[in-house]
Amino acid sequence: WARAVRGLLLDISGVLYDSGGEGGGVPIAGSAEAVRRIKASGLKLRFCTNETQATREKFVKKLQGLGFDISVAEVTAPAPAACRLLKERGLRPHLLVHDDVVPEFAEIDKTNPNCVVIGDAAENFSYANLNKAFQVLIGLEKPVLISLGEGRYYKETDGLKLDVGAYMKALEYACDVQAEVVGKPAKPFFESALAEMGVPPEQAIMIGDDIVSDVGGAQQCGMRAVQVRTGKYRPSDENHPQVKPDAYVNNLAEAVDTILSQM
Amino acid sequence: WARAVRGLLLDISGVLYDSGGEGGGVPIAGSAEAVRRIKASGLKLRFCTNETQATREKFVKKLQGLGFDISVAEVTAPAPAACRLLKERGLRPHLLVHDDVVPEFAEIDKTNPNCVVIGDAAENFSYANLNKAFQVLIGLEKPVLISLGEGRYYKETDGLKLDVGAYMKALEYACDVQAEVVGKPAKPFFESALAEMGVPPEQAIMIGDDIVSDVGGAQQCGMRAVQVRTGKYRPSDENHPQVKPDAYVNNLAEAVDTILSQM
Repeated sequence: WARAVRGLLLDISGVLYDSGGEGGGVPIAGSAEAVRRIKASGLKLRFCTNETQATREKFVKKLQGLGFDISVAEVTAPAPAACRLLKERGLRPHLLVHDDVVPEFAEIDKTNPNCVVIGDAAENFSYANLNKAFQVLIGLEKPVLISLGEGRYYKETDGLKLDVGAYMKALEYACDVQAEVVGKPAKPFFESALAEMGVPPEQAIMIGDDIVSDVGGAQQCGMRAVQVRTGKYRPSDENHPQVKPDAYVNNLAEAVDTILSQM
Repeated sequence: WARAVRGLLLDISGVLYDSGGEGGGVPIAGSAEAVRRIKASGLKLRFCTNETQATREKFVKKLQGLGFDISVAEVTAPAPAACRLLKERGLRPHLLVHDDVVPEFAEIDKTNPNCVVIGDAAENFSYANLNKAFQVLIGLEKPVLISLGEGRYYKETDGLKLDVGAYMKALEYACDVQAEVVGKPAKPFFESALAEMGVPPEQAIMIGDDIVSDVGGAQQCGMRAVQVRTGKYRPSDENHPQVKPDAYVNNLAEAVDTILSQM
């Protein structure tokens, strides 16, 4: 699975670090070193995240603080993709997102909303806020719901947490609509990341901890995909009825060892 | 639609009264009088509600305060149905329900939970509480989720509110399970109500404001069903792709007028 590769896409949460807790997260052993070795090898590299709890600036600063060699320009994330879509279609969103990602939507007209954008709002997923988003949607003649990802849950240092996908499903059901997903595993999202690297899908490998969003999504685009046994990985993933990764590795460091040894 | 009837099933919220606001609700004009006329006519009567924000005792007391002739023994509700099911199967629930419905589960062992029971928890649907229920479910080898209804939303005096069904879908998606629904529109729920009246389905009429839970559910059991244009009724219900009521009426009073005039 590791041959003839020119570019790598890395998921961040659960691959580079485990999020949550006091300091905002804990690096996964060997991952910071692995990123440095990828960069030294001449392979193209892109970070591909559904993280929507912070602006990319803030998120990248946190990762740098944890010892990672990463810059904003290397990160593909859902909020900028959503902004492009809103502008193209003249949509004015009601935002149900984390406070820290609101600045990504600074340029967008939010008066008199004609759609709802939902992200991983975490503590902002209160009863009152979810009702407010519901009331905006149900009041529209044709409800439009845009979701920054469709993840089921993710792992923080203090346990598994519900992700945006669960709340997206709640609003879909209440309003009888289907959300438009702009993060992983949506095809256009992976395609932007590949275009930004300048590598065709058959020469790229996605490395992630989410069997559906990371592995399944990347394979749908013609890429190879590897699941790490870190982050939200669970042993039952290895019997997933729909998705079979090209390989399993214990962690990012092991994936990079194998890839570099075959170059 | 109103001929050869011996028993009536009445939904409560949106048919007798609109819930919410300071005093806990506002009666719908003519409904209290309509209940009295049904009782005077000799027709069998049963109230059939998915209300899970209060014990039946407290709920019935509120309705009596609003002028309705109703007693606890006349009400079929999801919590007692759930308790029967929990006892039969030796299940110990983690409860995600409204504080005021907790006493209905007083007799049930809740230590070391092996299932989750979800009701219309309203303000208890916080981010923390939904995560807690999710963590219990995802930690079970075979997750069991029991839902006290599957309504999408209901109307309170200050607007539409998300109902238990939306949160049920969030947990179903996150844990990849299907909930067992014990309220309307589940068939056993209507069947208990019919048995309690002692009337066969073909001689009973359900009157409700919810096109799916009330009308669709009752029709699935072989009853006739009428939708009132009060409560959560919306004009678009009249073009529902799956469910067609046996009749529409402006309110409960009009339904009772028609039924009594044909006796």
